[in-house]
Amino acid sequence: MSTPIRIGIVGYGNLGRGVETALGLSPDMELVGVFTRRDPQGVDTVGAQAFPMSDLDRDRDDIDVLILCGGSRSDLPEQSPAQAARYSIVDSYDNHARIPEHFAAVDAAAKAGGTTAVISTGWDPGLFSLNRVYGEAIVPQGSTYTFWGRGLSQGHSDAVRRVPGVAAGVQYTLPSEPAIERVRAGENPELSTRERHTRECFVVLEEGADAETVRNEIVTMPDYFEPYDTTVHFITAEELARDHQGMPHGGFVIRSGTTSEGTKQVIEYRLALESNPEFTASVLVAYARAAARMNRAGDVGAKTVYDVAPGLLSPLSPEELRAGYL
Amino acid sequence: MSTPIRIGIVGYGNLGRGVETALGLSPDMELVGVFTRRDPQGVDTVGAQAFPMSDLDRDRDDIDVLILCGGSRSDLPEQSPAQAARYSIVDSYDNHARIPEHFAAVDAAAKAGGTTAVISTGWDPGLFSLNRVYGEAIVPQGSTYTFWGRGLSQGHSDAVRRVPGVAAGVQYTLPSEPAIERVRAGENPELSTRERHTRECFVVLEEGADAETVRNEIVTMPDYFEPYDTTVHFITAEELARDHQGMPHGGFVIRSGTTSEGTKQVIEYRLALESNPEFTASVLVAYARAAARMNRAGDVGAKTVYDVAPGLLSPLSPEELRAGYL
Repeated sequence: MSTPIRIGIVGYGNLGRGVETALGLSPDMELVGVFTRRDPQGVDTVGAQAFPMSDLDRDRDDIDVLILCGGSRSDLPEQSPAQAARYSIVDSYDNHARIPEHFAAVDAAAKAGGTTAVISTGWDPGLFSLNRVYGEAIVPQGSTYTFWGRGLSQGHSDAVRRVPGVAAGVQYTLPSEPAIERVRAGENPELSTRERHTRECFVVLEEGADAETVRNEIVTMPDYFEPYDTTVHFITAEELARDHQGMPHGGFVIRSGTTSEGTKQVIEYRLALESNPEFTASVLVAYARAAARMNRAGDVGAKTVYDVAPGLLSPLSPEELRAGYL
Repeated sequence: MSTPIRIGIVGYGNLGRGVETALGLSPDMELVGVFTRRDPQGVDTVGAQAFPMSDLDRDRDDIDVLILCGGSRSDLPEQSPAQAARYSIVDSYDNHARIPEHFAAVDAAAKAGGTTAVISTGWDPGLFSLNRVYGEAIVPQGSTYTFWGRGLSQGHSDAVRRVPGVAAGVQYTLPSEPAIERVRAGENPELSTRERHTRECFVVLEEGADAETVRNEIVTMPDYFEPYDTTVHFITAEELARDHQGMPHGGFVIRSGTTSEGTKQVIEYRLALESNPEFTASVLVAYARAAARMNRAGDVGAKTVYDVAPGLLSPLSPEELRAGYL
């Protein structure tokens, strides 16, 4: 094996911790350290050394790729272009509507800096995006369906917790099984929002709060719950702590179409994840490997999953892949 | 839209016909004609003009990519290198063990000729190969399972038809549902050949043949049926003609592993195809689009699905993909 690919992690929440764990499963990669805006002393890593973020300003030559683990709302729009000016990067920018703008900012910085920046990777955007394109390119006449879940939604959990009378709670998004069965059968149904997904809440009430009032407040909440069939379960704080600490997620991308009159073809891609942040982190690590290789080959600028040849994600050589995996 | 990509089809069986049909769904591509070793007058295409194969010897400048639709046993080992010397090509070479040798021969011819040759595409090898590599790169700690079916197997159908007393028949390979359920549940089971797949035969007996003798001959056939649980159904010639003319196939690639102690992650890719040759043809057409683009960009030599950036398969531009599909 050649020289390891040297990685820096920027930001250390669930995703950053997931990247640290994932790097432990990739012997061709090496973690230089975690870079944080917090006091490095206070960052409780699995084992990596923590440095202040400002350390990156001095253009360290011991890093091949930075994996940016901040949020899409305020961290990445600023950090990705700033760091891409000096380092090859990978990010998981997931504000779908603003991706073209983010791409342009990162591309300009990366081209000026001679770096390679893979943006918006993870599983959606990321692996699901790939499957939407593979499916449509291969079966041009048909429909693509994306279903999410069963998964913990941070945004919807936050909305539940803001309801008066709620002490704590979580929300899961569930794909509708009857809808999936119709899509799998090649029916190409038109599905309303209510038909695609349902929502399930587990709520701990505040002392003296009225369950029916809280339930009603949740299920009628515009945008978040009103367009869906929502079930609310009331549980104890102990049950919440015991049964709802994981961050499962996943979903399906299904392409269903015909290649000739009446000849149905169905392609289905499914993820069932016990930890959303650990899985997303694992995707980022694989794309960091690709970013390092593309940069060595002189392929600079911003990239998305559509620009990255699949073999670049694997630690194996092209010869090994052809002999063992085709 | 820019100038259409001009395609020639070499060989016109089920696969060649599927390519002709698939090209009708791709407005950015144009069919120049079918090239055949048979008398072109006798080739009953959907609409394309047929030419003698020898027409390709004069280095036609009206073809961007040839899609080779011959068989892996004797056609492609000879045709792929010969044609790659003059034309960019796509083939579906599927003799897994000999792919490195085939790659080397095609690569030498393509590099000498300045052409781009995507070999061994389709769905297995092809899309399934991609998913084996994506899965292992992202979840390095785990196991990959490939299940085939329910699908018509040509090789096993031929074996059934060679049994004395059999007038006609077909064989379907079925994935074992209990095995798939165990894999989906993240059990990472060790599965024997018998546990992975079952086989189902539909047989028309010759006049006077003994059903039990035929059944026994089939189910005990070494390699083909003995290692599997095989069911034999006896049907009439009318039932065979009515119910068994399609060429369905498909299967699953499942990657199951952990990203940390006890945290399971499952990735599943599934194809349910009503026509195996039409679907394979559709994959070849998408890779022909990629071959034309790679050749224009100066990326010559032999390629596999691992070398082809996913966005190159889509008729849409990188900007359109980023804005609409990420």
